Amino acid sequence: MNFASDNIVGASAPVLQAIMQANAGAMAAYGNDEISSRVRTRFNEIFEREISVFFVTTGTAANALALSAAVPPYGLCVCHREAHIIDDECGAPEFFMHGAKLAGLPGVGAKLTAMDVAAYLRSLPKAVKQMPPKALSVSQVSECGLVYGLDELSSLGAVCREHGLSFHMDGARFVNALVSLGCTPAEMTWKQGVDILSFGATKNGGLMAEAIVVFRKDLAEALDYRSKRAGQIISKGRLIGAQFEGYFADNHWIANARHANRMAGRLSDGLSQLPGVRLAWPTQANEVFPIIPKSLDQALKAAGIHYHSWTELSLPEAEGVADHEVLIRLVTSWATREEDVNQLLEVASSGVARQAAE
Amino acid sequence: MNFASDNIVGASAPVLQAIMQANAGAMAAYGNDEISSRVRTRFNEIFEREISVFFVTTGTAANALALSAAVPPYGLCVCHREAHIIDDECGAPEFFMHGAKLAGLPGVGAKLTAMDVAAYLRSLPKAVKQMPPKALSVSQVSECGLVYGLDELSSLGAVCREHGLSFHMDGARFVNALVSLGCTPAEMTWKQGVDILSFGATKNGGLMAEAIVVFRKDLAEALDYRSKRAGQIISKGRLIGAQFEGYFADNHWIANARHANRMAGRLSDGLSQLPGVRLAWPTQANEVFPIIPKSLDQALKAAGIHYHSWTELSLPEAEGVADHEVLIRLVTSWATREEDVNQLLEVASSGVARQAAE
Amino acid sequence: MNFASDNIVGASAPVLQAIMQANAGAMAAYGNDEISSRVRTRFNEIFEREISVFFVTTGTAANALALSAAVPPYGLCVCHREAHIIDDECGAPEFFMHGAKLAGLPGVGAKLTAMDVAAYLRSLPKAVKQMPPKALSVSQVSECGLVYGLDELSSLGAVCREHGLSFHMDGARFVNALVSLGCTPAEMTWKQGVDILSFGATKNGGLMAEAIVVFRKDLAEALDYRSKRAGQIISKGRLIGAQFEGYFADNHWIANARHANRMAGRLSDGLSQLPGVRLAWPTQANEVFPIIPKSLDQALKAAGIHYHSWTELSLPEAEGVADHEVLIRLVTSWATREEDVNQLLEVASSGVARQAAE
Amino acid sequence: MNFASDNIVGASAPVLQAIMQANAGAMAAYGNDEISSRVRTRFNEIFEREISVFFVTTGTAANALALSAAVPPYGLCVCHREAHIIDDECGAPEFFMHGAKLAGLPGVGAKLTAMDVAAYLRSLPKAVKQMPPKALSVSQVSECGLVYGLDELSSLGAVCREHGLSFHMDGARFVNALVSLGCTPAEMTWKQGVDILSFGATKNGGLMAEAIVVFRKDLAEALDYRSKRAGQIISKGRLIGAQFEGYFADNHWIANARHANRMAGRLSDGLSQLPGVRLAWPTQANEVFPIIPKSLDQALKAAGIHYHSWTELSLPEAEGVADHEVLIRLVTSWATREEDVNQLLEVASSGVARQAAE
Repeated sequence: MNFASDNIVGASAPVLQAIMQANAGAMAAYGNDEISSRVRTRFNEIFEREISVFFVTTGTAANALALSAAVPPYGLCVCHREAHIIDDECGAPEFFMHGAKLAGLPGVGAKLTAMDVAAYLRSLPKAVKQMPPKALSVSQVSECGLVYGLDELSSLGAVCREHGLSFHMDGARFVNALVSLGCTPAEMTWKQGVDILSFGATKNGGLMAEAIVVFRKDLAEALDYRSKRAGQIISKGRLIGAQFEGYFADNHWIANARHANRMAGRLSDGLSQLPGVRLAWPTQANEVFPIIPKSLDQALKAAGIHYHSWTELSLPEAEGVADHEVLIRLVTSWATREEDVNQLLEVASSGVARQAAE
Repeated sequence: MNFASDNIVGASAPVLQAIMQANAGAMAAYGNDEISSRVRTRFNEIFEREISVFFVTTGTAANALALSAAVPPYGLCVCHREAHIIDDECGAPEFFMHGAKLAGLPGVGAKLTAMDVAAYLRSLPKAVKQMPPKALSVSQVSECGLVYGLDELSSLGAVCREHGLSFHMDGARFVNALVSLGCTPAEMTWKQGVDILSFGATKNGGLMAEAIVVFRKDLAEALDYRSKRAGQIISKGRLIGAQFEGYFADNHWIANARHANRMAGRLSDGLSQLPGVRLAWPTQANEVFPIIPKSLDQALKAAGIHYHSWTELSLPEAEGVADHEVLIRLVTSWATREEDVNQLLEVASSGVARQAAE
Repeated sequence: MNFASDNIVGASAPVLQAIMQANAGAMAAYGNDEISSRVRTRFNEIFEREISVFFVTTGTAANALALSAAVPPYGLCVCHREAHIIDDECGAPEFFMHGAKLAGLPGVGAKLTAMDVAAYLRSLPKAVKQMPPKALSVSQVSECGLVYGLDELSSLGAVCREHGLSFHMDGARFVNALVSLGCTPAEMTWKQGVDILSFGATKNGGLMAEAIVVFRKDLAEALDYRSKRAGQIISKGRLIGAQFEGYFADNHWIANARHANRMAGRLSDGLSQLPGVRLAWPTQANEVFPIIPKSLDQALKAAGIHYHSWTELSLPEAEGVADHEVLIRLVTSWATREEDVNQLLEVASSGVARQAAE
Repeated sequence: MNFASDNIVGASAPVLQAIMQANAGAMAAYGNDEISSRVRTRFNEIFEREISVFFVTTGTAANALALSAAVPPYGLCVCHREAHIIDDECGAPEFFMHGAKLAGLPGVGAKLTAMDVAAYLRSLPKAVKQMPPKALSVSQVSECGLVYGLDELSSLGAVCREHGLSFHMDGARFVNALVSLGCTPAEMTWKQGVDILSFGATKNGGLMAEAIVVFRKDLAEALDYRSKRAGQIISKGRLIGAQFEGYFADNHWIANARHANRMAGRLSDGLSQLPGVRLAWPTQANEVFPIIPKSLDQALKAAGIHYHSWTELSLPEAEGVADHEVLIRLVTSWATREEDVNQLLEVASSGVARQAAE
């Protein structure tokens, strides 16, 4: 039973099938093949407008390239101080942005509020020593498993327009947020002011399928050059194109995310009912962050259940973790089996019961 | 019939099969899976020593990352002025090397001689205004389809050691050169002084399988960090690991290259016997560069045969192309069918005959 | 009366004189002149050993170039989160380090403790996603006017050695700290483990005289190339060389700093005795940080006294500034006249008295 | 007697005087002083329009910063293959442009023709692998001492507009070209389509006075941030401002250049009349490039005359240097004394005479 992350399994059947089928015959290289162009059209339909799509090989590249289009080397990119781009990519954004800086702001549940962002922007000295803010980046789903509501995104978009910032969304778990909100891709992005999106599919059924979706022409202009010089344009482009074709067919991507979120919901409900267990944050997508007794942590591990403890996250005091407790992260995916969820819950409840007995 | 390049077809059967088989089950992400570690051991066997291997997604990334490990931002990398790294990667090396410069030297057949490189290095002013040379990069196979002999590589390696340069080999068609020379991977690389190698498999049966092979510990030290910040460490690393496993199994890679070279040899022999047709350079691997009458060029295209003209290459005067002629490039691969080669030769000979009749 | 900063006046007489005298005659360009080489020898004497010295035109360049020698593009540089390099240089360090990141730690009085630095280094995940720490940078004098003691520097040096970090000191006010401690330049630097130093003279009598002093050969190796490509090697190098010659002659630099610190001491003593006035931090060099009633602030400004308020600094709660108060910074220099100090104190005390009367 | 370069002497009297006078009193730092703002107005008058001026400390920084405003990191900058920016600045442009590339074209006398530039631009493949051209840079005076005529500049400007390139002029010897053409600063720059100019004063009487003059608002927008992060904004900005004030006063800059050019003309006339001596290029500004017998070279050096041989320049065949000859460069300046010129000519003629006698 492995709840460590949603990138530990391979591709889901339809995606793998699509790779197989696309393998035969000669096609133009470097993404100029017919499959990739078909998929680009599909993206337009999904986002209900003309957009520019750039296929890349990792979420790191998607984020870093997207930001490099929005932030000049002397500029500032505002994000949450626990953001993936600031903490988990070995400085990729700084590399692609040529030294531009990430300004990490605090915020509950790894989410930013429009008010905090606006206050920060107003506080910046108007002087040449101060790098000028050029972009805002948010993670949808956030690093704490929370989902920005449409109103929250809309307020952040307004702050961006007011201060002349480009608005970037890190959508490594884009569709998990989408089904959680029950809205359309357009509603969750450009209709709220999002300018550029890292659209991840690898975690939700792809094998290696990431894309940058650009809603503003000026930001898309040079991304093909930037992508080429970053070594991100693979020669047999059909590999990525095909995955997206399989991913979108018959709403397969939606179904995968629905399942992952449902499994997370079951885990969350079951665990939070146990005495001595509480959630650090409500479960809104496919990640559960329970604070559990260390004894239960041992019981789960003893049962061969894999997951990560999440102590590095700096929690607001109110939600602090006691010495006898530990904060853990459980991630579900399209591949999570219901029986595994049930078994984890059994192990947990019996573990708690045993604890109470002693 | 498509002779445009060796990256226009998908993966060969064993490689595709390996991807399928590797898809099932949970594995550690980011290249820490068992398949990738098995393949690393396989690389050690193939190169007959402990080496460091880094998997990347494109040849561009392999070259640019390799050079970034060898050349500091203020340094110079010597290469041929027709080299792929200088002409065809939209400045990727300069991006990854943070502004370090490529110094392009002339040389027949897109090959460098140890004498020319040494003369160039001696000619550089010893002054702070002059970026200090730090690496030499050669393409094996060269951009004109030629293969460096072991003695040539050994002489270049000696120049590198004498002047304190790191020696990089762009091996996008590594194995095509290998079977052409009939030597071992070790003999074609570190035994001649090569320090770091871009090892390409995509053109010879892979779907997306590239690796950086490092023979010097100091050059390998930081490549994992550099690779991560370049967005080159894919999350489901098994995808690349599996391809290499299928690629190496039963000497499949050798067989693919032998076939490609043999097809090129047949094309080369057939064409060079036609009146009015000559070769710009001898055919030594899987690329043929005939200089043909424009009338024949039209005949071939009329027959629906795809290939690129190669006029951009600056040829030494002696080999100049006349106004009624055109230099073309024909590339064969593991997937080239013998009947296609025969048919091309028939179209060509009848085209030439018709021409003579008029 | 201007206490805004110590860079608002020109050069002190001996420095200006030296520029005049050095102007005549032909000399080698780019710092290869006899004056510059004489001064290099002088630096060796002052630091009691062979060192490498690189002349630059700004403190920003000194810091950024020094760090670029110590931190690779994928590395981390630890500093205080109020450090000048992180807050006041428009991203110069990130530019010169090619995207390497500054990690800002908290600490009272803008000073770092060895314990905090060590704890931070231990807390970093050992993973490729984490940029590896490569350098520590401290400001001597700190942004709050405090001076690191030799024991504190020695402990920080030990942490650097233990974790393989290079130790950088931002010495924009080097000599103000030096006379405050009453030690030798060697004792305040390499004898405590400092590897590379930004040695500022502009604020203490120079017109434009900054230097990078390197105590470790490996860090000095490429700095001439880095300096040239950064546009920092001026063609008439005598301009900077001459200033340092005048600066060091007859211990002029020491005398200037003694005067500046003494003036700050008088200001500090006088102000802190006034009711309703207290110091945010003790005065240890040539900067005074009093927290004063807003009414007094208005009185001082009304009297035409120039200085900056310092509200942007995030003070530890204990030292918080009340709503009716304001934190200001008063900087003295070699040019500060005793009568100006006295007059400021008179204005202040009468202002406070008037306030009490109302 | 030193004809090595025009940067081997200090500042001319009026410039030195201006530095002295500007030293007294308190002024705003970082170029916000009254002197610097007066000089900015003066620049507007000199160029007959509103322009943006940025003061920097070296010609290297002026060129590299100017290009960084015109060329994105993925772009190409066209220049002559002997250009100072490509050969003599240790990669500063590549550093400031974040890896953008310099494309060096051939051309007689280190000058580019509009026809050659246009032909090169048309020849570039329209593909993502090809860095897109974004700027053209010319040196006025060229590296061979030649001056572009207004018609030549105008044609180059037209090519830039047609292909969407920014037009940069390296004016390290701006005024030497200006007096040679006898035109106005406006006529030699923006009226011919120049967008951004490196305006050098150091070689013609300054001590350290360089400026970037920008004629297009969009190119000026971020240059203050770029300049700050490059460590080019000196804290006591009056130092540079004052030099320019002294430089422009009473047309002092024009007088200095007239003298330098006149001295070069005398040298040129005298030498070219000697048997066995010829000029590699006509003398149009303050540099003379005679091809002389090696025996004469020895005689001159024996007489203690300092200058550089110029063999590294790749001359067009027609002008080739024979084995018994050497190409040398003689540079005159505002400080060159007529008697030194006369003495050099005497030494030369007697040397040639002695040679003939033997």
